[in-house]
Amino acid sequence: MKAYKDLSKEELQAVQTELQAQYQKLKEAGIQLDMSRGKPGIDQLDLSVSMFDVLSSKSSFKGVDNIDIRSYGLFDGVTEAKELFAEIMECPADHVMVYGNSSLNIMYDLVSNAMLHGICGNTPWCKLDKVKFLCPVPGYDRHFAITESLGIEMINIPMDENGPDMDMVEQYVNNDPTVKGIWNVPKYTNPAGIVYSDEVVRRFANLKPAAPDFRIFWDNAYAVHHLYVDNKVPMLNIVEECEKAGNPNIYYQLCSTSKVTFPGSGVAALIASPENLSDIRKTVTKETIGYDKLNQMRHVLFFKDAAGVHAHMEKHAAILRPKFEAVLDCLESELGGLEIGKWVKPLGGYFIAFDTIEGCAKRVVELCKEAGVVMTPAGSTYPYKKDPKDTSIRIAPTYPTPEELKQACEVFVLCVKLASVEKYMENIA
Amino acid sequence: MKAYKDLSKEELQAVQTELQAQYQKLKEAGIQLDMSRGKPGIDQLDLSVSMFDVLSSKSSFKGVDNIDIRSYGLFDGVTEAKELFAEIMECPADHVMVYGNSSLNIMYDLVSNAMLHGICGNTPWCKLDKVKFLCPVPGYDRHFAITESLGIEMINIPMDENGPDMDMVEQYVNNDPTVKGIWNVPKYTNPAGIVYSDEVVRRFANLKPAAPDFRIFWDNAYAVHHLYVDNKVPMLNIVEECEKAGNPNIYYQLCSTSKVTFPGSGVAALIASPENLSDIRKTVTKETIGYDKLNQMRHVLFFKDAAGVHAHMEKHAAILRPKFEAVLDCLESELGGLEIGKWVKPLGGYFIAFDTIEGCAKRVVELCKEAGVVMTPAGSTYPYKKDPKDTSIRIAPTYPTPEELKQACEVFVLCVKLASVEKYMENIA
Repeated sequence: MKAYKDLSKEELQAVQTELQAQYQKLKEAGIQLDMSRGKPGIDQLDLSVSMFDVLSSKSSFKGVDNIDIRSYGLFDGVTEAKELFAEIMECPADHVMVYGNSSLNIMYDLVSNAMLHGICGNTPWCKLDKVKFLCPVPGYDRHFAITESLGIEMINIPMDENGPDMDMVEQYVNNDPTVKGIWNVPKYTNPAGIVYSDEVVRRFANLKPAAPDFRIFWDNAYAVHHLYVDNKVPMLNIVEECEKAGNPNIYYQLCSTSKVTFPGSGVAALIASPENLSDIRKTVTKETIGYDKLNQMRHVLFFKDAAGVHAHMEKHAAILRPKFEAVLDCLESELGGLEIGKWVKPLGGYFIAFDTIEGCAKRVVELCKEAGVVMTPAGSTYPYKKDPKDTSIRIAPTYPTPEELKQACEVFVLCVKLASVEKYMENIA
Repeated sequence: MKAYKDLSKEELQAVQTELQAQYQKLKEAGIQLDMSRGKPGIDQLDLSVSMFDVLSSKSSFKGVDNIDIRSYGLFDGVTEAKELFAEIMECPADHVMVYGNSSLNIMYDLVSNAMLHGICGNTPWCKLDKVKFLCPVPGYDRHFAITESLGIEMINIPMDENGPDMDMVEQYVNNDPTVKGIWNVPKYTNPAGIVYSDEVVRRFANLKPAAPDFRIFWDNAYAVHHLYVDNKVPMLNIVEECEKAGNPNIYYQLCSTSKVTFPGSGVAALIASPENLSDIRKTVTKETIGYDKLNQMRHVLFFKDAAGVHAHMEKHAAILRPKFEAVLDCLESELGGLEIGKWVKPLGGYFIAFDTIEGCAKRVVELCKEAGVVMTPAGSTYPYKKDPKDTSIRIAPTYPTPEELKQACEVFVLCVKLASVEKYMENIA
């Protein structure tokens, strides 16, 4: 297959005519498919429904804390849940606070409370003229929505297969005291699917921030979300590395069971140094009397321990692998050699990141939509929804069936081809 | 029984000697009792445990919204839950947003987001030099903790058996644009147990605030928490009254099932005008992808409708009545005629408010503690924990058994007598 960039004007025209005919036919097929959000499939949700039977009217409602978990108390989580998260995330239990159903909500809280109350006695950010966050791109749109809504200036940090450009991160963090945070999904990144390298994690841990209240937001949403049982990509432990580096308070690590049990009805946790947690507890006691301890205990009884979680995640992987492979096979067979797109095969997580040639992402998503396939809006993986080169598309292959994905991906690759030809024609003209 | 104030110095001394002997004996009895927090008793928690069986692995997980409630979506609540709260609170369902497990958390969110984002396009409060809240006293300590933590100045508003001093409320709200809110527990107030009169509710609805972003925080925590089935105290509907007054956006009404099902594992709701809700949704979408819809549905399936809730509340009342009566009988029989304390018999809610003579509340609580009975710290029902006259004590009779309450109350009345005699002796000397 000849790369599109090497085609002559006439060749491009011929390809375009043929693609347009195919596209017309596809549009008439009345397809309706959605690859826009990282939602688990129905069969994944079914994996956890027996959790509804672990607490019953005949249960005992006292755990090791000897407090009736149906009532008030234990605002930072039941001990069993802290221990379960500690085992999963490989950190001491005194580094864990267990919250409600959403790690996004914890992050919103951490940032908005930093605005209002300040971190560890430092000036509340809302009293400062300027607050900046670094945003490795492409990244998670809901992270960026938090900082944007609070008027925090966001700075793009490019990423490669090892993680963010650490020269740039160090340059900003170690010199600019208005840089207060950096968003990360360090493992099986959303959307690129890469895992931060050892060097990247170590350089994070060894940052020497100009701002004493700078925090690394380490949203380890996919910590246990491997796709290949025999190829679980390891990542250095941020807690250990920061402690080794003498920077024990520099990170907030987040995790949840949203994509382990139920999105919206899972349990989320914050992992941070005891000093950070003690600072955070002061505000949390103003916010709530406590989170849903019964749901915490449901999770504990359902999983028992980290081994239970890992075994459960293998069932998820078995469902997700064919979906990822359906998309990746289609990309490879349809686009291989054309040099009009780049992607990385993810070994975990929920997404495949696809890069078009410059200036094509929006057009691809638009063409897909017209043909009945909903993609995440182009640009939404960038701060302010502005992808400067208009190349980045997030593919979310988890919700549709493998058959639907095959069909959706055929539409997608056709749209990539069409948009690329259009772009080359434009450049020639 | 002669009132203490009419006793001579010698008579007071004789009384004191006798009381001290009794107190010494009580201390030696090694009592350990707690009347400090409004916690439901174990038997109350048992009333709702069959809720754990209504969702099972065999359930259907689609409601009228036709969305799998185990997954993402419906961030402002499942329709069935909105309808249930609308029926309970007697308002249209489009005035309801259903959140997570805590109405306190909704209130923290509303105030902190008003600080950061502003209300309905008005200046964020954190950009203003001064923000004030009115605080009817005695009131709920956790309300005051929210505003205190955010640096909002709190102003005491005295209450009588009809509710807050509305002349004072109107004076502040209608003239001072820095007054942005007022905290209320309007029905079976915490702690006084009174219900706002029709006139008070109408005057609230007809306020003409100097600040366009002034809001009445109407924490209707005990809306259905009657103690006497045949004496449910009615209260005017704030939604209807505000609409009649042409003030549809002036209130935020809160409610929850914390004291209907489980504290910490219930469901909370915000009731507000569609215009307010539309403003609030803009921020909530930044905070979370959604609340726990499964727990919302559990509540819906358990109660079915408002009649189900009311029938359930009668079971709570049957458990609570003897507890309230144990305390009230003891107060009446031991303190009647002595003129050293005032209290109102509540017809609902979770508390009894007791007023000592001036300057005695702290001392009573201290004496109780020494004798093994934990009371809510004196002053905590006032902003900044400062009760200017040191008279207000909150009695929480819901958690102990009636027998324990009888014993605890005997300690309490003895401490009231002791502290009062001390005070009169001091005044004579």
